[in-house]
Amino acid sequence: MFKITALQNGLENVDGFYFGGVKSGFKKDANDLGFIRSDEVVDVSANFTSNKFRAAPIRHFLKYPKNFKTNFILLNSKNANAMTGEAGVNDIDTLFTRLKETLNLNLVNPIMSSTGVIGYRLNIDKISASFDKFELNSRDSNATVSAIMTTDSFKKELAYEVELKDGSKFKIAAICKGAGMINPAFATMLCFILTDANIPKEDMDELLDGAVKQSFNCVSVDGDTSTNDTVMLLSSRKSNSYNKNAFKEVLNLLTKELSLMLVKDGEGSTKVVEFEVKGAKNLEEAQRAAKALSNSLLVKTAIFGEDPNWGRIASTIGASNVECDEDKLVIFYDDVLLYDKNHKELDKAREADAHAIMQKPNYKISCDLGVGEANFSAYGCDLGHAYVSINADYRS
Amino acid sequence: MFKITALQNGLENVDGFYFGGVKSGFKKDANDLGFIRSDEVVDVSANFTSNKFRAAPIRHFLKYPKNFKTNFILLNSKNANAMTGEAGVNDIDTLFTRLKETLNLNLVNPIMSSTGVIGYRLNIDKISASFDKFELNSRDSNATVSAIMTTDSFKKELAYEVELKDGSKFKIAAICKGAGMINPAFATMLCFILTDANIPKEDMDELLDGAVKQSFNCVSVDGDTSTNDTVMLLSSRKSNSYNKNAFKEVLNLLTKELSLMLVKDGEGSTKVVEFEVKGAKNLEEAQRAAKALSNSLLVKTAIFGEDPNWGRIASTIGASNVECDEDKLVIFYDDVLLYDKNHKELDKAREADAHAIMQKPNYKISCDLGVGEANFSAYGCDLGHAYVSINADYRS
Repeated sequence: MFKITALQNGLENVDGFYFGGVKSGFKKDANDLGFIRSDEVVDVSANFTSNKFRAAPIRHFLKYPKNFKTNFILLNSKNANAMTGEAGVNDIDTLFTRLKETLNLNLVNPIMSSTGVIGYRLNIDKISASFDKFELNSRDSNATVSAIMTTDSFKKELAYEVELKDGSKFKIAAICKGAGMINPAFATMLCFILTDANIPKEDMDELLDGAVKQSFNCVSVDGDTSTNDTVMLLSSRKSNSYNKNAFKEVLNLLTKELSLMLVKDGEGSTKVVEFEVKGAKNLEEAQRAAKALSNSLLVKTAIFGEDPNWGRIASTIGASNVECDEDKLVIFYDDVLLYDKNHKELDKAREADAHAIMQKPNYKISCDLGVGEANFSAYGCDLGHAYVSINADYRS
Repeated sequence: MFKITALQNGLENVDGFYFGGVKSGFKKDANDLGFIRSDEVVDVSANFTSNKFRAAPIRHFLKYPKNFKTNFILLNSKNANAMTGEAGVNDIDTLFTRLKETLNLNLVNPIMSSTGVIGYRLNIDKISASFDKFELNSRDSNATVSAIMTTDSFKKELAYEVELKDGSKFKIAAICKGAGMINPAFATMLCFILTDANIPKEDMDELLDGAVKQSFNCVSVDGDTSTNDTVMLLSSRKSNSYNKNAFKEVLNLLTKELSLMLVKDGEGSTKVVEFEVKGAKNLEEAQRAAKALSNSLLVKTAIFGEDPNWGRIASTIGASNVECDEDKLVIFYDDVLLYDKNHKELDKAREADAHAIMQKPNYKISCDLGVGEANFSAYGCDLGHAYVSINADYRS
């Protein structure tokens, strides 16, 4: 039906957009200010944090009329512009006024996206002093993603080409940041997805919602939901190609991979674990149990310690207020049976097998509740000393 | 109206009970098996975990008819007898049969209470081999509490005398264990409260429920709810004294103090923090926000790092799905204003003041949501390297 091919590099694969990043002096020696722009105005679909204290950039975005088009996204790190009130929203407008003046740009409904510390006003002067460093025709995906990185330890970018059966092709690419404050009800992260597909706006909205539900909403680093979470999809429509099923599949693939990159880069994490809950009474209970596992401190520390202590898995499920039964529960670590009603105690051989699995960087803990048909997988990571060190003083 | 006086030591203050602890060999060199008994049968009120996988001792207790009386509680640590199915419940009966034979005891509805690792059957032979070490007339509170300690770093016992205005007196005392797996929906802990007050059984039930709600249900170490949580209140009625208000006050005081001891002994914790949420829309929202604060990893690590990063407090409230408003929220650390709509940014002086407060072992973070009248305080602790070390391999 269609063919999906992974491409090298990131945003530079998609025609119709320009992007770059510069050093404005907030980070010691790395990019902290960036942009994504298009020559023509483009549709933008967005999905924001469920945190009630939405940051100023999100409130600024939401003031535009529904289905507005844009040609500019300004990006910054080190300051989230959150809990800054109406003044924080006005600061964004001030920045765009200065940007327009400095670069003589025609800005149409410009958007800002920020990440960093909560509770401080943006330093307008320092930021705008760097606008003249922007190379407006650059297409440097690496420099752009650098500008939004915070505690990330590696760059997160992906690109795919999709070839439809009529031979037409479109491309999709994304940059993403996020390492801590990652939460299952939406990850603390910024993600910008660009495509040249000839996709209608209503499909953009629908498919982005679905993609976020099966990707970013399934991952957890620490269970904390940030004020700034943002996923945006923009289409230049430079390609005439489009097929809804193909786009859905590649968008789901791309967002799922990016979300697993977030968990892999969970602050101080050494393992990425899939917590699969099967046989739950309904989807809501499957999600609740899976997310409880991915957020449990006792589970996360046992994973860090490579201890096949399935009792913590069972206890967390029991505490998650889902229908369950000691005699129906079955727990596997990959293909090793850790618990069922006939194997309540772990013998030395199975314990050794489970311990070996837990030494791998990726594995699956699967719990069949045996009370229904609903399944859900959440993705989480371990919690070790590095998480504590990173978060004990984020601001230093 | 009445006078409450703190007493030295623990259970030995209450007439009508005998208690002790012995080494049965599960711990290297400490007590791991104990008992509390009475000459006459006594009423017992109990409050158990909300975990769906209730441990065998709890299931064994719940098989007795409502309002049963008892004269014996058997205590053990190192094995929770949880996820052991019907066999685990039967093991308890086997132990009591052996106990009866060994000590020629008249056991009436004997109760067992266990704490330790989940998922292993009790070693019946090893436990019963130590029954003849029990000194049935001992009144050694210290030896008893030792027998239920796991990762606890200090013994938790308290005793009070209450003098009513008619000059009559009654006493109440408790032992308690718990350090990790402590959760706001009920702490992973065992607590045995003895009194000689002439309290009716219906008051025991009612007042214990109320006491647990305002004490153990407000504390959190790690947000994990165990399979074995138990609070029991037993009365010998050796004193003729009783007054409901006085008993309620002393029971609330005792349980509150014990619950704060649990947080203080939270695995690796260095600080106990009260998270007060005021001005919430309703009690349920006040509780949800306060417990979210006490469980947030980012808040707990900031407390460990003594970083007055109030943005994490605000972000956690915003993520807790309660009614709130950036312009109504007010955050204090003790008496230092960290945030309100006119003080969004932390200046150097207030930051220094807040940092000084955060160096104290106890302080309060108070958040006024400003949208209603409901208040709730949750108590939590920081999360540091010691927590990770303790929990990375609990079983070693």
